[in-house]
Amino acid sequence: MTDQPRFLIIADGAFGPETSKTADCAIRYIPERVAAVLDGSAAGRTAQDVLGFGGSIPVVATLEAGLNLGPTALLIGIAPRGGRLPDEWRGWIATAIDRGLDIWSGLHTLIGDDAELAALARAKCVRIFDLRKAPDGIPVSNGRARLVDALVVLTVGTDCNTGKMTAQLELLHALESRGIRTRFVPTGQTGILIAGWGIAVDAVVADFVGGAAEQMVVEAAKDAEVVLVEGQGSLIHPGYSGVTLGLLHGSCPAAMILCHKVSRRLIGEYHKGTAWIGIPPLADMVRVYEEAAGWVHPSRVIGVALNTCDLSEHDAATAIERAARETGLPATDPVRFGADPLVEAIAQAAARRRAAGSATPA
Amino acid sequence: MTDQPRFLIIADGAFGPETSKTADCAIRYIPERVAAVLDGSAAGRTAQDVLGFGGSIPVVATLEAGLNLGPTALLIGIAPRGGRLPDEWRGWIATAIDRGLDIWSGLHTLIGDDAELAALARAKCVRIFDLRKAPDGIPVSNGRARLVDALVVLTVGTDCNTGKMTAQLELLHALESRGIRTRFVPTGQTGILIAGWGIAVDAVVADFVGGAAEQMVVEAAKDAEVVLVEGQGSLIHPGYSGVTLGLLHGSCPAAMILCHKVSRRLIGEYHKGTAWIGIPPLADMVRVYEEAAGWVHPSRVIGVALNTCDLSEHDAATAIERAARETGLPATDPVRFGADPLVEAIAQAAARRRAAGSATPA
Repeated sequence: MTDQPRFLIIADGAFGPETSKTADCAIRYIPERVAAVLDGSAAGRTAQDVLGFGGSIPVVATLEAGLNLGPTALLIGIAPRGGRLPDEWRGWIATAIDRGLDIWSGLHTLIGDDAELAALARAKCVRIFDLRKAPDGIPVSNGRARLVDALVVLTVGTDCNTGKMTAQLELLHALESRGIRTRFVPTGQTGILIAGWGIAVDAVVADFVGGAAEQMVVEAAKDAEVVLVEGQGSLIHPGYSGVTLGLLHGSCPAAMILCHKVSRRLIGEYHKGTAWIGIPPLADMVRVYEEAAGWVHPSRVIGVALNTCDLSEHDAATAIERAARETGLPATDPVRFGADPLVEAIAQAAARRRAAGSATPA
Repeated sequence: MTDQPRFLIIADGAFGPETSKTADCAIRYIPERVAAVLDGSAAGRTAQDVLGFGGSIPVVATLEAGLNLGPTALLIGIAPRGGRLPDEWRGWIATAIDRGLDIWSGLHTLIGDDAELAALARAKCVRIFDLRKAPDGIPVSNGRARLVDALVVLTVGTDCNTGKMTAQLELLHALESRGIRTRFVPTGQTGILIAGWGIAVDAVVADFVGGAAEQMVVEAAKDAEVVLVEGQGSLIHPGYSGVTLGLLHGSCPAAMILCHKVSRRLIGEYHKGTAWIGIPPLADMVRVYEEAAGWVHPSRVIGVALNTCDLSEHDAATAIERAARETGLPATDPVRFGADPLVEAIAQAAARRRAAGSATPA
């Protein structure tokens, strides 16, 4: 027996490898906690059918069918642009509360702030976990994270939704299995769901993005040799670049891993009709991140993590070779081919750091 | 008679040219609305004595002395780091409400969210204006501001507190006096206080900084040839760089004015004991801003606005000459020597834009 929740995940109309990030990551990293996925358009299939992983977790057509599978919590598993709660979901949430399920949500609109749903939850003694709810008292950042002894590694991206959290979770497991004391710093709702702590930096008041990152890095570094910070957005994304820079300057990484989805051509093209900025060559992105980091604290990109989930084996291998050649850095798809080249780069950087005994770039 | 408030401004222990930005700007731009300043450490002097402008506006030692001068509103005139309400001020605010004064505040901690003060205000029928309170429904930015016909000009800085709002207000008046239809977009609490509209972009949820800027630029551009956007922070400030980049990418300026306080050596050195990053040469800062803007939309720095308030006339003139030589751009201290060189640069950029008929960098 366990105290862990068993989730019915709402991903209605959007369950898929590119469109339901929170659902997908829960299924990849905590599948034992997933009872079913609600998506009328994919009903009758399994997670494996839809995502290529997740085994026999079923997709159901209706809330009722999902409730019949014995979940103890409802998880909002897709993040609409802007993160707000679609009106039609309120009914599902109310029904779930009425049936005694806890509610987990990563939306910007906090479920606990909805007077009606909050009152219903109190009446039914169920809990509402708003993963994006920021704690009070976050300070303004001021470079304290640059002073920690641990090697701080931030994943940075050519775009949103390229695998920045996934790369860190793969690295976490690989580094720990080598006996390197490693901590993961979750900065988004899905990372928080999986790791059980963290702050969604895109949901704090803008002045405190860096402070939230700084506070978490300083805390995580107390007990680790390597701190893996989940990256957010992209410096070249017209909607989210501010969050990315605040996180970069707040966390003061000595090292960065550049994450890229190989098939992506335009920034944010998974949001239909809104994409207009082309993704530059990877070597240019390395330069952009190293320059922007250096405004506050010097940092180096030490590896490239590619997301090749929609490519053939041959095309994926070719893309990895090309990325390594173009950047002069170790490259891999950590999910598909393992994280070894990146683990090696991090282990070497950590060893250099121990030898140098000071806070220098990796 | 007028409906405008008459302010008693709280700047206790901090009234001065570098330490009480909101108070100072109110005294510079809306002196007719200022009854007195409360600061025990400067009591008995005038605004002119303390700031070098502001005439006979008195500084008083106690709340009671200020209330005797007939204010209709209390204005929080200093912004503590992090923007939160010092506990001891709550008593002053409660007393002011009790005496029928409206409350105006630019702090991150919203006065209207304080249950006790809010209840007292309701009971006394006075209003609480939280200048940093963000409206609901701000979208994520996506470059819509790059498509407006108006010339969008953003002030950018080497640091916080360098004169980015002041430069725009000086330019606003100078451009209007030349008959150029100009609108000012306030992005911080003091600009909002003076202009009567706007959104404090550092107080919105981080994902929406760019969207707030975009929304205001699109609105302002409907009725103007030139849109002057108040800048915030600095790309190289470890605490506020995320806000700066979000504002830059959300507002999509075709032109930027670089603002610098000549006597400043370290980022944020006016916050005692926390400064550690040196301010680079101005030409480097021009390159930093043009590069970062260009990740989303190309832009050029077209002039330099220096703040020389603490320099001799001779040193100020020398600093302006040096800035012009180092950057190859027109430079002035718009408060001290007038905004003409910058007005000329903007007028030329606007004319080029009309001639080109398209959204190109200035």
